[in-house]
Amino acid sequence: MSNDPRLIIALDVYDLAKAINIASETADICFAFKVNWPLVMNSGVGAISELSRFGRVICDFKLADIPNTNTLITDRARSAGAWGIISHSAVGEDSLRAVVKSAKSMKVFSVVYMSHPGWSDIMGDSLSRLISISRSAGVDGLIGPGNEPDVLRKIRQYEKQLPILAPGIGAQGGSPLKAIQAGADYIIVGRSIYSSDDPRRSAMALLDDISGAGPPERILE
Amino acid sequence: MSNDPRLIIALDVYDLAKAINIASETADICFAFKVNWPLVMNSGVGAISELSRFGRVICDFKLADIPNTNTLITDRARSAGAWGIISHSAVGEDSLRAVVKSAKSMKVFSVVYMSHPGWSDIMGDSLSRLISISRSAGVDGLIGPGNEPDVLRKIRQYEKQLPILAPGIGAQGGSPLKAIQAGADYIIVGRSIYSSDDPRRSAMALLDDISGAGPPERILE
Repeated sequence: MSNDPRLIIALDVYDLAKAINIASETADICFAFKVNWPLVMNSGVGAISELSRFGRVICDFKLADIPNTNTLITDRARSAGAWGIISHSAVGEDSLRAVVKSAKSMKVFSVVYMSHPGWSDIMGDSLSRLISISRSAGVDGLIGPGNEPDVLRKIRQYEKQLPILAPGIGAQGGSPLKAIQAGADYIIVGRSIYSSDDPRRSAMALLDDISGAGPPERILE
Repeated sequence: MSNDPRLIIALDVYDLAKAINIASETADICFAFKVNWPLVMNSGVGAISELSRFGRVICDFKLADIPNTNTLITDRARSAGAWGIISHSAVGEDSLRAVVKSAKSMKVFSVVYMSHPGWSDIMGDSLSRLISISRSAGVDGLIGPGNEPDVLRKIRQYEKQLPILAPGIGAQGGSPLKAIQAGADYIIVGRSIYSSDDPRRSAMALLDDISGAGPPERILE
């Protein structure tokens, strides 16, 4: 089985040993791993370095600070070996630009929509604006909701070039194939893989579901 | 010299040994310490536990994720011994509520405005709305810009009860006394203390500046 070019596995666990275990079991069948703060809180940035031995690591840090602090966090993730980092766009283009600048060759992915109800309540119809500043800041891809195909379609309508990475698949309700059909290039799957008794088998079942979709239209390398 | 009830020292450094050094030199003259992600990236949450030996520790994590992830991060900060945590309100009331719920007796401070230009460009006139959801989510205080007295006055006009904690003092341009006069109860000072050759002396000079201001009108305990 060769690496699937669309699957990103979210290692949203506290425990580095568990994350390493899942990564070692699935490295040959996914495109990248996503890690978030709880893991780094437990193990420091060494967690990023350790997991980088198995594949690309995307730090899902939802950066949302002033430009200077965003820079410090991005620098540290990069020097630990991260391949990509996720930043908010909602706190402003200057903050996002700071991430892109300090990321250097590391990829930057920008959150332009979130699917919990509180987001839309505050951010309202900011979608096209957030896509526009993400594009102008020079990000490498957008984070869109895998469990809301209509929103994915809207993102794709506003932005033709940048890849869309879609979390919210599986346990959070999104269908991987529907997300892809709506415009997602990469799907991010967490709980239904990391909480499984057999993460590799769960990942393979998911790959089966999307086997007809072919490679992403917009490719990250 | 007794603890100043208004001064929060931001230990925005990478290196835990340096942070501990500053904390040990200033513990008796400040109300609390603020730490942010770069320190935790380097040392894990052990940094929070270590610094808690010297005083109250506020985690400036600018939480901005879905409710479930915000909960995981908050839990971990609390169990490491943090006294307080800083969360965004801009990604929605449900995300903020998740922080308040998992914080338990830990204090939660909500960002309602940021002073870098990109913020207002996106968040526009959201100030009263963000204060309103912060209040209704049950936070313990608001984070407002110490370098923009007019905005502090506006926050105080919308919200009479909650304490305001104001960063942006010193190196970022804010005058501590002007921030207090505009409604800040606590001032957060970083660079001008942690980058000083003599952090204690710099902190004392700052306390001199505000010595006439008396204790905060709205008190955290």
